[in-house]
Amino acid sequence: MSEAERLMQIALRLAELGRGQTSPNPMVGAVIVQHGEIVGQGAHLKAGGPHAEVHALRMAGDRAKGATVYVTLEPCAHVGRTPPCADALIEAGVAEVVVACTDPNPEVSGAGIRRLQQAGIRVTVGVLEKQAQALNEAYFHWRATGRPFVVWKCAATLDGYIATHQGDSRYVTSPEARQSVHQLRQEHPAIAVGVGTLLADNPQLTIRLQGRPLNAWQPLRVVFDSNLRSRPDAEVFQGPGKTLIYTSVSDVKGGRAAQLQARGAEIQVVEADLHGRVLLPAALNDLGQRGLTSVLVEAGPTVAGALLRDRLVDKVVYYIAPKLLGGGMTAVQGRDPERMSEALRLTRVSVSQIGPDLRVEGYVSKLDTQH
Amino acid sequence: MSEAERLMQIALRLAELGRGQTSPNPMVGAVIVQHGEIVGQGAHLKAGGPHAEVHALRMAGDRAKGATVYVTLEPCAHVGRTPPCADALIEAGVAEVVVACTDPNPEVSGAGIRRLQQAGIRVTVGVLEKQAQALNEAYFHWRATGRPFVVWKCAATLDGYIATHQGDSRYVTSPEARQSVHQLRQEHPAIAVGVGTLLADNPQLTIRLQGRPLNAWQPLRVVFDSNLRSRPDAEVFQGPGKTLIYTSVSDVKGGRAAQLQARGAEIQVVEADLHGRVLLPAALNDLGQRGLTSVLVEAGPTVAGALLRDRLVDKVVYYIAPKLLGGGMTAVQGRDPERMSEALRLTRVSVSQIGPDLRVEGYVSKLDTQH
Repeated sequence: MSEAERLMQIALRLAELGRGQTSPNPMVGAVIVQHGEIVGQGAHLKAGGPHAEVHALRMAGDRAKGATVYVTLEPCAHVGRTPPCADALIEAGVAEVVVACTDPNPEVSGAGIRRLQQAGIRVTVGVLEKQAQALNEAYFHWRATGRPFVVWKCAATLDGYIATHQGDSRYVTSPEARQSVHQLRQEHPAIAVGVGTLLADNPQLTIRLQGRPLNAWQPLRVVFDSNLRSRPDAEVFQGPGKTLIYTSVSDVKGGRAAQLQARGAEIQVVEADLHGRVLLPAALNDLGQRGLTSVLVEAGPTVAGALLRDRLVDKVVYYIAPKLLGGGMTAVQGRDPERMSEALRLTRVSVSQIGPDLRVEGYVSKLDTQH
Repeated sequence: MSEAERLMQIALRLAELGRGQTSPNPMVGAVIVQHGEIVGQGAHLKAGGPHAEVHALRMAGDRAKGATVYVTLEPCAHVGRTPPCADALIEAGVAEVVVACTDPNPEVSGAGIRRLQQAGIRVTVGVLEKQAQALNEAYFHWRATGRPFVVWKCAATLDGYIATHQGDSRYVTSPEARQSVHQLRQEHPAIAVGVGTLLADNPQLTIRLQGRPLNAWQPLRVVFDSNLRSRPDAEVFQGPGKTLIYTSVSDVKGGRAAQLQARGAEIQVVEADLHGRVLLPAALNDLGQRGLTSVLVEAGPTVAGALLRDRLVDKVVYYIAPKLLGGGMTAVQGRDPERMSEALRLTRVSVSQIGPDLRVEGYVSKLDTQH
């Protein structure tokens, strides 16, 4: 690992500190180096707050003059909620800027680098580029597609069951694995379920971690509910955080819409298919327009099947409990290909053990065929 | 690790060399040590062939006199197909015998040790005892229960499907994983399927490994076929190896039994339940009486469900392919508990990666409740 890579690695670690807090902004880290010594460092921690470069420049003070800046994403060149970072770097008199990857944001892309170069600053791009893009995989996906990065989380027994036939799913996995789901939730600005899960499990869909204040930030709770079957007394309409319902009908008998709105829920009517079911691509596009860069889907077989059928799942986090149920409900239904070769292949698969359980993580391959 | 444990470890590695070849005998390894130097070593390689101690004594020759023998299982004291090893050790004049574990065989149990002690040989028992028992888990189980040790092998997608709804299962896992199944088959004297798998997949159920002669030993192929639905032209009745059918009827219309027998199949009628289905405990007891210490079950959902329902599965080897099918056939059916807490827990779980696939191995807990 070269010295430039070592320093970019530090900047990436700094960036990582903001995970779950920066949406819709990407995580960014910056390190300022003068004569081989780190004189400034910073991370972007919250949309609307200072960018990583600004924190690092403040720390470096006069020592930024003639220094080299390592930054995980191209510095911005536009006035957003904060002034452009490229200008701040120029004003500080830095000599060189090393960038991991360019920003896909059309307001930035390439412009930040050009502005620095025009000011006579030497710019290098591409140091640990893949790592930097992987760090902000959700942001890059959202910029490229307009839709949030979709992470499907599932918990099943080794023989593939998520619940008994009677619907009992408490609990498939260990307390350790369930705790790790709360950490996973913290990394996403939104959590989604289908109305089936809402009615069967009545989940809270909040982040509950020891030591985390109850009034801390909570992800947006999203319910796919084509026919407004959500019960107004459901847990997702209680407690902290907002809840958004995607439906295909503006109301149903009994004034259900008004009851749900009275509980604070927002109801968003989106396009439906011929059977009146919410078109998930339409709902995801709406989430993207709302600035939600990723969504953690904790839905049941129907929604999972629809997402997989439409190739809308980007990443899978699968918890497997080492137990055998012997029959029950499966994780996905309704895709039903005829041939095993039509299975969707996962790539970049990693496996870890959490308590007694396994955690398998992978990306849904965009290729049509498998090995 | 003490010196005694280090030497027993070597004996255990020697024993392991006979895996898959010794049934119904256990795997045994022996090391003879004189003045800290290994002067003899041996492993039991085949039922009817010399025992490990005999091989080791032959190698040691005169240097066995006054030596210490490390043996993974209590030396036998009875005349079987070979003369008793205890006598051979006494005649060779060894001074000490270190035994990992006693033999559960009623013809041996304790008698081998007593014979050595009566001859003035110092005997120590219990060095790496658990490892020695784990090595011969199948043999110990068979001795204790009269039934073969049942290993259920399954291959499923990450979302829990073993085939499409149309029955296509070619292939769930990678060539590497499928190759490892042939190695697994080599460790068992019998492989079993249900007639459903026979009709759907028409498997050969033979060991096919590169470099292994086609006419080499093959495990007994077992088919659970309550109503004699097996087709006489099925692959399991071709090629090398014998096939045994467990059924509840002596024949069906059309003289199917005679056709199957003409293909070399043995038909064994066993007790059935009220629905005429073969009682699997009865079939397993019969396999045990035939001296089969373990059976690899590669059956489909029905047989797997029946085995799990009756708590007849001892160990599970589960291959998981990192792909999502989205619907299809599941691994087990028919157990169907009402509560998730009724799932059978696996213990001593280990996970490895084989090519792109996962291999999860575990033992079915004999406890009724889970964490």
